[in-house]
Amino acid sequence: INNSDANIDDIGTYDDFHTIDWLREMSRNRLRHRQILYRKKESFFRTLKGLHDAWSGWLVVLLVGLAAGTCAGLIDIVTKWLTDVKLGTCSGKFWLNQESCCWNSHTAEPSGTGCSEWKTWATIFGVENSNTGLTYGVNYLLYIVSALIFASLAALLVKMFAPYACGSGIPEVKTILSGFIIRGYLGKWTLLIKSITAPLAVASNLSLGKEGPLVHIASCCGNIFAHLFPKYGKNEAKKREVLSAAAAAGVSVAFGAPVGGVLFSLEEVSYYFPMKTLWRSFFCALTAAFILRSINPFGNSHLVMFYVTYNKPWFLKNSKLGNYPILEVVVVTFITAAASYPNPYTRIDASMMIAELVKECGPVMQNNLCDYTASVVNATFSVVKDPPVTPIGSGLRTALWQLALALLFKGIITVFTFGIKVPTGLFIPSMGVGAIMGRLIGVGVEQLVYNYPDCALWKTSCHAGHSCVTPGLYAMVGAAATLGGVTRMTVSLVVIMFELTGGLQYIVPLMAAAMFSKWVGDAFGNEGIYDGHIRLNGYPFLDNKEEFTHTTLATDVMRPRRGDQPLTVIEQEGMTVGDLEHLVRTTKYNGFPVITSHESQQLIGYLYRRDLILALENAHHNNEHVLSNSLVYFTLHAPTPSLGGANDPVPLRLFNIVDLSPITVTDHTPMEIVVEIFSKLGIKTSTVVKRSLKLLGIITKKDVLRHIAQLNKQDPDSILFN
Amino acid sequence: INNSDANIDDIGTYDDFHTIDWLREMSRNRLRHRQILYRKKESFFRTLKGLHDAWSGWLVVLLVGLAAGTCAGLIDIVTKWLTDVKLGTCSGKFWLNQESCCWNSHTAEPSGTGCSEWKTWATIFGVENSNTGLTYGVNYLLYIVSALIFASLAALLVKMFAPYACGSGIPEVKTILSGFIIRGYLGKWTLLIKSITAPLAVASNLSLGKEGPLVHIASCCGNIFAHLFPKYGKNEAKKREVLSAAAAAGVSVAFGAPVGGVLFSLEEVSYYFPMKTLWRSFFCALTAAFILRSINPFGNSHLVMFYVTYNKPWFLKNSKLGNYPILEVVVVTFITAAASYPNPYTRIDASMMIAELVKECGPVMQNNLCDYTASVVNATFSVVKDPPVTPIGSGLRTALWQLALALLFKGIITVFTFGIKVPTGLFIPSMGVGAIMGRLIGVGVEQLVYNYPDCALWKTSCHAGHSCVTPGLYAMVGAAATLGGVTRMTVSLVVIMFELTGGLQYIVPLMAAAMFSKWVGDAFGNEGIYDGHIRLNGYPFLDNKEEFTHTTLATDVMRPRRGDQPLTVIEQEGMTVGDLEHLVRTTKYNGFPVITSHESQQLIGYLYRRDLILALENAHHNNEHVLSNSLVYFTLHAPTPSLGGANDPVPLRLFNIVDLSPITVTDHTPMEIVVEIFSKLGIKTSTVVKRSLKLLGIITKKDVLRHIAQLNKQDPDSILFN
Repeated sequence: INNSDANIDDIGTYDDFHTIDWLREMSRNRLRHRQILYRKKESFFRTLKGLHDAWSGWLVVLLVGLAAGTCAGLIDIVTKWLTDVKLGTCSGKFWLNQESCCWNSHTAEPSGTGCSEWKTWATIFGVENSNTGLTYGVNYLLYIVSALIFASLAALLVKMFAPYACGSGIPEVKTILSGFIIRGYLGKWTLLIKSITAPLAVASNLSLGKEGPLVHIASCCGNIFAHLFPKYGKNEAKKREVLSAAAAAGVSVAFGAPVGGVLFSLEEVSYYFPMKTLWRSFFCALTAAFILRSINPFGNSHLVMFYVTYNKPWFLKNSKLGNYPILEVVVVTFITAAASYPNPYTRIDASMMIAELVKECGPVMQNNLCDYTASVVNATFSVVKDPPVTPIGSGLRTALWQLALALLFKGIITVFTFGIKVPTGLFIPSMGVGAIMGRLIGVGVEQLVYNYPDCALWKTSCHAGHSCVTPGLYAMVGAAATLGGVTRMTVSLVVIMFELTGGLQYIVPLMAAAMFSKWVGDAFGNEGIYDGHIRLNGYPFLDNKEEFTHTTLATDVMRPRRGDQPLTVIEQEGMTVGDLEHLVRTTKYNGFPVITSHESQQLIGYLYRRDLILALENAHHNNEHVLSNSLVYFTLHAPTPSLGGANDPVPLRLFNIVDLSPITVTDHTPMEIVVEIFSKLGIKTSTVVKRSLKLLGIITKKDVLRHIAQLNKQDPDSILFN
Repeated sequence: INNSDANIDDIGTYDDFHTIDWLREMSRNRLRHRQILYRKKESFFRTLKGLHDAWSGWLVVLLVGLAAGTCAGLIDIVTKWLTDVKLGTCSGKFWLNQESCCWNSHTAEPSGTGCSEWKTWATIFGVENSNTGLTYGVNYLLYIVSALIFASLAALLVKMFAPYACGSGIPEVKTILSGFIIRGYLGKWTLLIKSITAPLAVASNLSLGKEGPLVHIASCCGNIFAHLFPKYGKNEAKKREVLSAAAAAGVSVAFGAPVGGVLFSLEEVSYYFPMKTLWRSFFCALTAAFILRSINPFGNSHLVMFYVTYNKPWFLKNSKLGNYPILEVVVVTFITAAASYPNPYTRIDASMMIAELVKECGPVMQNNLCDYTASVVNATFSVVKDPPVTPIGSGLRTALWQLALALLFKGIITVFTFGIKVPTGLFIPSMGVGAIMGRLIGVGVEQLVYNYPDCALWKTSCHAGHSCVTPGLYAMVGAAATLGGVTRMTVSLVVIMFELTGGLQYIVPLMAAAMFSKWVGDAFGNEGIYDGHIRLNGYPFLDNKEEFTHTTLATDVMRPRRGDQPLTVIEQEGMTVGDLEHLVRTTKYNGFPVITSHESQQLIGYLYRRDLILALENAHHNNEHVLSNSLVYFTLHAPTPSLGGANDPVPLRLFNIVDLSPITVTDHTPMEIVVEIFSKLGIKTSTVVKRSLKLLGIITKKDVLRHIAQLNKQDPDSILFN
């Protein structure tokens, strides 16, 4: 037996682009745990090892939290700096962004738009005092140029070093958490490149953002740290517990919303989420949030919104540009930058725009949005004090026009920003669109109330001639609604929103927004952005949220169908090493049922292809007397090696690598139950047996998914991997 | 077939104190759903029915939320009034409690301790102006008397009308949600009596509270409304989705913490919790919270804490009083009331005491706790402004003494309040103890800082001679820690706490408290209060949170064991009605495997006892030619009835009531996998088959539980029901 004990660690690992068997992984983990408990008494060292094993669960999430928080903090700072560098620089202290530059400046303007220390490029190149047109031109030009540099640099880095770093990565993270394996997707290179390119992409003012990528980055941290602990690194199921916590930490740092992060990980991303994980995820998310806050205290963590990717393959496939990623990025960036600069609402960072839109009008902010004909000061705390409603001022009129244009522009450009090969997101753009719409509607309603104070609709709630409308709230609700419509998030959305706004008082409108946007969205297609992405990429993702409602039987799904080749099986006795190697060479199956004999067809167990290959290599390596004509026994009682000539073949015992209790269903089992078994137990393969357990066939997860796709009138061949 | 179609509704229902089969219930629901979809096209009425079915999910949680909120609101008001009535009454307006009575009174004292309209009983009986001793005596006496009246009335009502209304009910709700059936536990009588007696019990100043009962009450609402919708009323699995939402609503109204409620339901109570349910539970919890707020706006929803029951059977069994519930209640109440009154901190409602302890010292509250030698006004916002630390004043010294005594007293009396037969809780008591300890420690640390300002521990964080200690925060953390230790709640505890305190800034200490209390608690025994209660009551609860870590095989657990009687089975052909009736009479099994014949022992399916009984009764009822000697066929192709004499027996076809695809495992399947299957799929029974599917035996959920109990060195017979 020892020849396959030698690499017991390799036995039970998986190939790239394969699905894991949760049940098997958990069993392996329990086995490992038992061994530790068993050896605990042996020595003090063993005891320490046991303790370390017990604590490693908390240790790893702590480390992940620290790492994720640090990454997020640095990314925030770099992004801010890069964004401001497009517009100007801090005289003397080029490493400061505008905010820090003007932090303790006496010339700082109340609205925080600038100070004397902060100089635009035009000023630096000394064209400030010449005609304003030139000034504007220079700033405009440098804005575009810097944007182009950032974007192309980002695209270049991604293309050269880490192609996996493009997009937001959330759909892939979700797929990985569901038990799929994509080697390198959460590797250190992805982490490094994504951490560098995300700020560049955001700073290039493309209509995308960094929060989605932050989730991916946090997951990378989780994966990397998991490898430090064999308990998690060597067990795919346990590793995913860490990844769930890491995803929660990612959302937590993206929003400064730990609870929302945990709920997001639970509701949206995770697949198998035991309660123990919930607690650790929360711990991880909190750690990350606090590290972030301590690194970047001035970070606008309470105003950033969340991004999501939307790499629609049809777009990539249909676009000629799609074949030239760098060029594509350059073109899109140029158009964006050129069109953005003139409009103050598209010039600034999208999240800053949203922040401005959701604000209420107070004495502090003197911007156009609050330019009513009456003095702004009266409008303070419009909810509390009910100041008299006033008609729109000229500044606000301009603002409304600019907003309308921004809405139009963003609506269009966002479509073209989809799926360019840099860390992208749709979240901020869509929220921006939502916020603009909300604000516009809000102001509209406000003026309606002003012009028709006696309308029955609001007569009771508003005292005649007094404002009871908060355009900022409309903007917030609009943003939430768009966001909900895009992602179909529900609880996590609401929780995140009220962690952002910090208060339960707005929960009713937010909840209503989330609810209706979800319902409306579901009316158009019952699929969130992640699931759509997953389906379009053909990942094998068995959604455990939706029910299987058809009446088919296992016999309809299993292989072989009538007229197919008979199933490839392994006999427990009588096959030679050569036969098995030929089997491995000639077939692509991930595993083979082991049966007593072709006559009786009695099922013994199930043998994974990878394990078989490893065992055979191993046998050759450990014992040169194992020849291609030596018999292989998958039974406990194999004959002892013949003590004849040195070249005689030595029989090979491989009993211990056979899974002796594969999940089996009968051919009459309804598929609804089979699906339940697959999704709840997270198994990869189930053998189908006749009443007399005569082996009839086999169902793989892929078959189930194809079957579902077929029943949903989708292309079964869209499921690509095994 | 129609003879068993006749009462298709009864087929597949369960008896009292039995466990449901989730897999089967979900299948039945899918079948029902398919029928609706299928008939949808038939007529407009059918279409409406389909729509109603689709919406009923939201409708029912809305109704539950409204009902739960209303109940909680009324209970709050009544409790407040009863509590105050012990001390006095509002002159002229007896229906007002002290707060409302003094609401717009000019004589109201700032600390809200009273006003001229509010008169103590002594005043009303005109002994006010005589010596203070008499005044005190009268108040004292009436305090005790009213407490006794309330308590005994509560005990009487519970004993007479709804014995299930005692305790907090959370453990039972948890058991029910795990798939157990206790008829009447969530019935209207329990709802009514518990809603009446909970305020009485609280007002009687026993060391117990109403929040735990609120969860039970909300669950009752859930159960009652579920019965209005066949989709939920007739399907035990679907009904439990509503109950999960109801439990969330219960916690939500108990704390005014909707998110915490959902997390509590998810983490602590619920067993099977699909994401759809999460969203609806959140909706339900929010509705309830807002109804409560609108009914009882002055409710101290942000200061009440949460209760839990702790009916330790050993206590009940060992106490003679336990046999005389009413007397027991009276005695405990008398002792409590008599000992509580003299001490200001035990006299008032426990939740009010906690509220006072967690408060910071400000100019508003002039009570002893803030009596430092320096003027109180300086101590305002002790965190923000860092006022100079001052030594303890005489008032505070008294307060500390009283607190110490209260701690001692509560610690003792709470033990004796366990499990008296009224709606009880341990939550407020334990939190009170925690809060007192916290406050004492807090003040201690404060004075330590004052006396040794140069100690390295706090020199850096506190500027010498300035306070940087908030005793209130210590109290809050203490309360959270005790609470966490008792219930082992983690995320939900922290979320509830910060929904109560309304802010993330205290989340670190709270989190640390929850974490360490859980770890310390687990060191003494890895079991929360609910699980302990469930185990002590012997409910069949298969915990899906803890892993099965042993190496036993299915063959070790299954029945029959070696030497036992052979398994009672049903042959698919050849058995008569008489045989089956005899089988039902003579055995107590919940179901029987159906096999081809005793010779081949090939498994066909599984037949539930209850279904068999119903089918037989039904057959007799529908067709008088079904005699006890008529053959029963569990096959598709049964012979046509013989057309002989009128009295000839008619063969009976019962194929459609047999479950043809029972979950099966082989005798070599490791128990860890069997347990996984049982808990994940929520099945009730699994058949065990040999490799050649020759039927070997059967495992019921009960066997699994007994097996686990045995392996944990517990009494297997403590599992009572099936």
